[in-house]
Amino acid sequence: MMKTRIGILGYGNLGKGIEYAVSETEDMELAAVFTRRDPSTVTPVTAGVPVVSVSDIRDWTDKIDVLMICGGSATDLPVQTPEYAKYFNVIDSFDTHHNIPTHFANVDASAKEGGHVAMISVGWDPGLFSLARAYAGAILPNGKDYTFWGKGVSQGHSDAVRRIEGVANAKQYTIPCEDALAAVRNGENPELTVRQKHTREVFVVLKEGADAAAIEKEIVEMPNYFDEYDTTVHFIDAEEFARNHSGMGHGGFVIRSGNTGEGHKNNHVVEFSLKLDSNPEFTSSVLIAYARAVKRLADAGETGCRTVFDIAPCMLSPLSPEEMRSHLL
Amino acid sequence: MMKTRIGILGYGNLGKGIEYAVSETEDMELAAVFTRRDPSTVTPVTAGVPVVSVSDIRDWTDKIDVLMICGGSATDLPVQTPEYAKYFNVIDSFDTHHNIPTHFANVDASAKEGGHVAMISVGWDPGLFSLARAYAGAILPNGKDYTFWGKGVSQGHSDAVRRIEGVANAKQYTIPCEDALAAVRNGENPELTVRQKHTREVFVVLKEGADAAAIEKEIVEMPNYFDEYDTTVHFIDAEEFARNHSGMGHGGFVIRSGNTGEGHKNNHVVEFSLKLDSNPEFTSSVLIAYARAVKRLADAGETGCRTVFDIAPCMLSPLSPEEMRSHLL
Repeated sequence: MMKTRIGILGYGNLGKGIEYAVSETEDMELAAVFTRRDPSTVTPVTAGVPVVSVSDIRDWTDKIDVLMICGGSATDLPVQTPEYAKYFNVIDSFDTHHNIPTHFANVDASAKEGGHVAMISVGWDPGLFSLARAYAGAILPNGKDYTFWGKGVSQGHSDAVRRIEGVANAKQYTIPCEDALAAVRNGENPELTVRQKHTREVFVVLKEGADAAAIEKEIVEMPNYFDEYDTTVHFIDAEEFARNHSGMGHGGFVIRSGNTGEGHKNNHVVEFSLKLDSNPEFTSSVLIAYARAVKRLADAGETGCRTVFDIAPCMLSPLSPEEMRSHLL
Repeated sequence: MMKTRIGILGYGNLGKGIEYAVSETEDMELAAVFTRRDPSTVTPVTAGVPVVSVSDIRDWTDKIDVLMICGGSATDLPVQTPEYAKYFNVIDSFDTHHNIPTHFANVDASAKEGGHVAMISVGWDPGLFSLARAYAGAILPNGKDYTFWGKGVSQGHSDAVRRIEGVANAKQYTIPCEDALAAVRNGENPELTVRQKHTREVFVVLKEGADAAAIEKEIVEMPNYFDEYDTTVHFIDAEEFARNHSGMGHGGFVIRSGNTGEGHKNNHVVEFSLKLDSNPEFTSSVLIAYARAVKRLADAGETGCRTVFDIAPCMLSPLSPEEMRSHLL
């Protein structure tokens, strides 16, 4: 069997996760890593994998089946995915929810122009959580969706705290409220305020001589980031921070509660949840499963942009349809 | 918009659930109920719906878009689904896991011969639980699946108890073991025996003069049904039985725990669960969502048999692709 040749564009946490995810498959191989850095400074875990300057990427159009674009959603992906969809089958994890329609249109036009298949917004939210909402919503039209995130690190909130004068380092955890989760699981269909769904917990390392009380006040009252939440601030030293707060765990819950039957008297609760030790490694694993689908769509002569909604589950699996029916159905 | 015309074959709990599920949609209507009974003895909830003898079903080939076959898996569906796939687009909830490949082959041949689309084994297990196994398995190849059922009624086990001399009525609940669930959720990847995964709880109404101790012994030692499980037997009166044990609730959990990254050190837990007040009504709701996909495949000129693995999530939703990307992704 000819293996699917994977290219990685951008070798950060996500790119490295892709490399590990490829190594768990039998039908894919890592063909090259493309970087904006000096290639001599990038060392993939897999021995012998070429590291190539992104300026030479067009020399590789015949040697890459699917290009995994591992940039950030704010500035990288809106430019990179439409650009490289002209030359490669591509896949990204674009996660700025309200810009998805624009990104989709741009990538779709490029992919069609280039005769390639593209997928955007693959990961867990958007991605698997979107699927959970779509399946449960189609099945229980008379119902209500709830998405809870965490426990996990919010990069944006951590950055906001680190910008405060006197803060040496900080990490912010988003935590779903147990009471709210329990009410939703119990089929109560509660109306929940922002404050009732999640709490925030912040671990801060202070600079020498900083005013802890003032910084705590500035955090918990910060508009848009913390003022609508109940926030707990912990001051710790750099050693404890390094020991306990360098992980990249995350997760969350998508729950739909809906009613059926005579007088809508029967309630059903559909729940999908994730508990992840490494957010980037799990996201990479989702991306690699969908890269298999991208290759299959391209082999079938399709072109244009797709999302997780467009992909039948059989396209993700290395198993044959017969094996899936025998072992998984 | 032309509504999708749904036919129901077999008006029991599942058929009635289909009728309610159709009433929750805006793009479908119930066209007819087909029955093996005397049609005058069957009264659908929806006023004005024709009830037709199954012997006249072939008069309806132009008036039904999707026929929902609501028979049992033991003897009805293996005959009915291949038979009616010759004349209609059909969908069933065939749930005898080890006979799925044979059923698929029979239905596929008939559907292709008749130029129709068929779907088999739609519901929650097989069905949504199969999807949970397929998605999580494709994403975390280095992992392990666990399926727990319950708390819910096992019809087969309830029947087995009712066949015991001296038993007037009985209901058997399958209950997942909390300790096992907790170990799986904790990423411990335990090896679990049958006894460690589920317990069984039986509620029995005795006939006058029956020997409770002997019946309890016969239940807990019954080969294949109870001997491999820890079983609790409760003797109650007919009134309590009617009050507390006439529900049709069920549910369960599919959990995959898998590892990624350097030395497989990072663990991820993907969990899908259902808590259902009415097993037949929820199953019907799944069937109706997939009926939408069957109609769309048939409109696209496809033929042959499909399972949940072959259907892209977008095919289930009444929303447009643009609406799905804007609101659910």
